Formats: sequence, C-alpha cells, structure tokens
Amino acid sequence: MTKIALIGFGVVGQGFARVLSQKQQELKEKYGLDAQLVAISGRSKGSLMVEEGIDLGSLLTSFDKYGTVESYPTGTKGLDSIQTIKESGADVVIEVTGTNLETGGAGLPHIREALGLGKHVITCNKGPAALAYSELKELADANGAKFRIESTVMAGTPAVNLGKEALAGNKILGFKGIINGTTNFILTKMGEGGDYDATLKEAQELGYAEADPAGDVEGWDAVGKVVILANTLMGANLKPTDVEREGITGITPVMVEEAKKEGMKIKLIARAYLEDGAVKAKVSPESMLLTDPLANVNNTMNALTFTTDGLHEVTVIGRGAGGVETAHGIISDLIAIYR
Amino acid sequence: MTKIALIGFGVVGQGFARVLSQKQQELKEKYGLDAQLVAISGRSKGSLMVEEGIDLGSLLTSFDKYGTVESYPTGTKGLDSIQTIKESGADVVIEVTGTNLETGGAGLPHIREALGLGKHVITCNKGPAALAYSELKELADANGAKFRIESTVMAGTPAVNLGKEALAGNKILGFKGIINGTTNFILTKMGEGGDYDATLKEAQELGYAEADPAGDVEGWDAVGKVVILANTLMGANLKPTDVEREGITGITPVMVEEAKKEGMKIKLIARAYLEDGAVKAKVSPESMLLTDPLANVNNTMNALTFTTDGLHEVTVIGRGAGGVETAHGIISDLIAIYR
Repeated sequence: MTKIALIGFGVVGQGFARVLSQKQQELKEKYGLDAQLVAISGRSKGSLMVEEGIDLGSLLTSFDKYGTVESYPTGTKGLDSIQTIKESGADVVIEVTGTNLETGGAGLPHIREALGLGKHVITCNKGPAALAYSELKELADANGAKFRIESTVMAGTPAVNLGKEALAGNKILGFKGIINGTTNFILTKMGEGGDYDATLKEAQELGYAEADPAGDVEGWDAVGKVVILANTLMGANLKPTDVEREGITGITPVMVEEAKKEGMKIKLIARAYLEDGAVKAKVSPESMLLTDPLANVNNTMNALTFTTDGLHEVTVIGRGAGGVETAHGIISDLIAIYR
Repeated sequence: MTKIALIGFGVVGQGFARVLSQKQQELKEKYGLDAQLVAISGRSKGSLMVEEGIDLGSLLTSFDKYGTVESYPTGTKGLDSIQTIKESGADVVIEVTGTNLETGGAGLPHIREALGLGKHVITCNKGPAALAYSELKELADANGAKFRIESTVMAGTPAVNLGKEALAGNKILGFKGIINGTTNFILTKMGEGGDYDATLKEAQELGYAEADPAGDVEGWDAVGKVVILANTLMGANLKPTDVEREGITGITPVMVEEAKKEGMKIKLIARAYLEDGAVKAKVSPESMLLTDPLANVNNTMNALTFTTDGLHEVTVIGRGAGGVETAHGIISDLIAIYR
C-alpha cells in the first residue's frame, strides 16, 4: 500500500481525489500500485487523517454535501498542514496549495518538511519549483526521496518528463512555447476581431482568467514555467527575476490586424536559449508565420517546441490547465516513482 | 560497464555507433551509464567481437576507410549474428537489421535468442514488434529482461514511450497520426502543384523513397507502425493484415486541388479507435481542415495525436526517420533500462 497525504484541497486537490477514486482499481491492476489517500489538509476545506486509508467515494459524497473534508465520519480532524505531513505516515506527499512566485508560499515549507522526512513529493506548485528546484532536488537525493514536478508546466501534458525522460540522451539546446492558456485565449479572440478589454472580460466570465489577471497577462505565470523548464532541462539556475518579461497588455487590435496581413499571428512566447554558453530566458509577444507549429495552437491550448541535438525540433501540443488534467500529471509522476 | 551487442550495421547501426561515440562520456556523467559496444554483426559489413569494448573512434575511422568492421585491429572476426548474441557476453542486444513485415525477417530469431538468454533487447525493427510484440514481451518478462521499441515508430521522437510512460495513468482511447514521412513529402509537394510521378521521383532522388516505393506509398510501413502503437498502447492484438489499408497511389492533382478549395489538405492518416469495445485500425488518405494540428505537418515530418481519457488530445510532432534520429530513440531506451 502506497500512502498519500494531499496538501491542498482546491481545484487540483479535489480533481486529484476524483481521478484517484476513478482509477484506484486500474492503477492496482495495471501497475501494481495500491494508492491510498491517508490524509488531506486544505486551507479552508478542513483536514482529515485516516490511518487505514480514506474511502474516496464516501469522502467525495460528503464533501460535495458539506464543503469540508471534516464531514467524513471517522479519522482525526483539525491537524494543520505540517502536522499532517509529519503524522500521517504517508510515503508520498502531494503538494497542491496556491502558487506564490515571489516567496514560494506555503508550498515551500511543506515540501522541505516532507523531503526532510524522506517522503517522496509530487507538486503542481510553480512557486517552490521555480524558486528552489535545485535545493529541493538535493534535499530529496540526500534523503532517498523523489521530487517530481511534471504538472507544474502544461498540467498533465508531458513537458518536464518529456524533456527529462522520453527525450533522455538528447541535449536540450533550447525551447519555445505557448505555456499560458489565458493569454493564448485572449490573443486568439483578438485574432477573430475582439478588442483586449472585451476578450479579457470573456476570459474572466469563462473562468480562464482571475479577477486580478496580472499574473497571466503580465507574463508572470509563463515566467515561472520557463524558469522551471530551463532549470530542470537545461541545467540553468535562473530565478523568475532573471527572465526578460513583456506581457500582452500592450497588444492592440491594430497590431493583430497588421500581423494577419503579413500572414502571421501574435503569440505570447516563452523561450530559453543558449547565449555565450549561458542559458537566457524570455517571455514576450512574438509574431510568427502560420507555418510554425505554434501558430496554429489556439484558445486555451498550450504547446512546447524543444530544440535538441539529436532530433532537432520536437513539439508537444495539449491542454495546459484544469483540475482533472493536472491530476493526470500528478498520477503519471506517482506511477513513475513506483515503477 | 553495460555491454552492448549491435546486430545490424546499416544506416541505423552506423548512426548508433556514431551517436554513442559522441555521447559515451555524457551518458557516464549524467546517468552513470558506462555503455560499451562489445560486438557488431552486420549482414554485409562484417562482424567484430572485442571483450573489453570497441574503441569507437578507431572503429569508425577504419570502417569509413575500408567499409567493413573487420578492419578493426583486434578482436574476433567472422561470427554470425546468432553466435554474436550468444558469445559476446552482452547485457543488451540492439537489433537494427532490415524490416520484414510479413515474416519478421532475421530480427525475429535474433530477438527471441537474446531475450531467451535474459539479455535486454532494444529494437527499431518494425517486423518483430508488429508481428510478435506480446510473445516477445512475455519472453522478456519470463527471463527478467526488458524489451523496448521506442524507435520503431517516429524514430527518436517520443511515441511508444510517450504513450506508455509520459502519459501513464491516462487511458489511450485512440490515436491518429502521420507516421510515414515519404508519403507526407509526396502529398506536401503535390499540394504545391506537383503531380504524383514527378514528386515520387523527387522523393527517390532525395533518398526519402526506395527504388521500389510500394512499402511506403501503399501504406504498409504505416500499417506496421499503427499495429505496434495499437498493441502496445491500447492492449490490442492486431496483425498487419487486420488493418484496413489504402495508400496514396490513387491521389490525383485534381483531388489535392479540390481539397485545397475547401480549405483542407489530404494526408495519409494512420488511426486506431475503439468500436464496440474492440480496437480497429486503418491507414488511408483523409481530407482534413487546416485547423487540425496534423494538417500543418509537412514534408517528411511525422506527428501523432493521442486521444486520452484524462487529457483529451495530446499531439507530438517531430522527425520520423534518419540514422541519427533513430539512434537517439535507441539511446533513450538504453537510459530507461538502466535508470
């Protein structure tokens, strides 16, 4: 039995619990992985620890009714996140609390605590991965634990693991991608004739953009992801503040129209490249020809093109957000740990 | 030290020796993998066995000069392929002889022999993988060996391992792809105004098509690959003869022009899908809208779109042929075995 503690019970945490409840049997049959959730600690959704494993069907039914995991009939309630990590007896801690790209947020102490205790950690949390990947990887290695972060970039669409594992043996010389769905949605709609304010409002109504959209439209979300990819795949040691950054707030309908006349599209492109032997990274709007595989990636879809020594360009295209999609990235990491 | 026997020394075998000679040091430093070639057996390039490992720089220099591996100054010469597998003391056999989709060719007995001796096998050879994957996988499991086939489909661009490993935890519900570069080159040139015969001739002159082009243009190569993907990723048990097949020889400039008028392109699409619970597969020319990620994959490039339960559509685009590209797929399998 593989015991899991889930720290964070927002969209991704709930998505993970739902996907695990659907796939628990399949994981056992196909991979021999008997994955049991033994603890959940949410910021506002309560906390629950059940030594023998939480019955997920029962948990989700009662959570949907009462809005807190403490409505589960048995188990220990009221532990905080650090106590949960320490006392749950979990082999794997899945850290899915909110992201803070300046400080690392609560996720950073959670992950340090778990790795320090020799527990494997899987996270979709960009803050700790962007600010402290090498520190956390060393801590993991020193304690015989794994630290896996597939779903920090492009949710469950293979990105980090694609570069590190599926492309192992290739040297990643650089990459460019569309790794923020909100801005790609806005730019796609502007390409269909919308203006910036109206399309931002539409994105907010559809739940693609936050009430305060700065993290997406100013390029910070993409900066976090480009740092993670550069540091894990190109051996860089960048911080978010090292990345040259320009968002999409300056893009006007006239600019979009002019690009179209030249057979081009404007996309918010995140890229990393080698310059005089050093890894540089940049997030900015770029005009690209329609023949570029990235130019035809529209709406909230994400895409990433790696440049490698052995295969030249390899592109992956897929969804980049969503609770269920992110949960699948976490599950692929869980399977990789136990394989 | 990981001892490798290389069976086959054509384009891929030579590509592998060259890539390994460039990456030997990097594999040691980055992955702790001390990969040494201890034997080579080619059909027309001679055979060589050197217990302490072949010096690849010296081998390639003398091979480029004399055209046979037997020009290497030391070692045992003249063993046949089965003797080489048996006597080389290799831990891993890399099987890269010519493909035969009807019988499995020489590759099939090579792989059976190696797996039966408990040696890991890596192959790019479509015949054995398409005709006998489940038999060979069982033989590998029974002997504690690994059987890996990444480079049978799309050379080193992640395809089999993408579906099995990077997307682990997702159920692959189906896929469609452009997995034959020769036909994609011909259809791309026809889209630019060429006729079938002229573009086929151009493909032959560029080395993309064989003197007898039937294997590509009649769809057999794509059939072999679709069977491999369906059997390894969807749990099917198809044979090449189970696949509905139509090549591109019937495509005329008029058809290409008419598709263009409707905003579409004709591509040779290989697909597998579930029908009444059974996996069906098909290779045929299809007209597709330009908004489909596959429609913009041109010339010899390959692409594959998986439909999964967790992530919906995930597409990978990359090169699908070439000695160096295929060698990188083999090396990713080698790293995976030793990780």
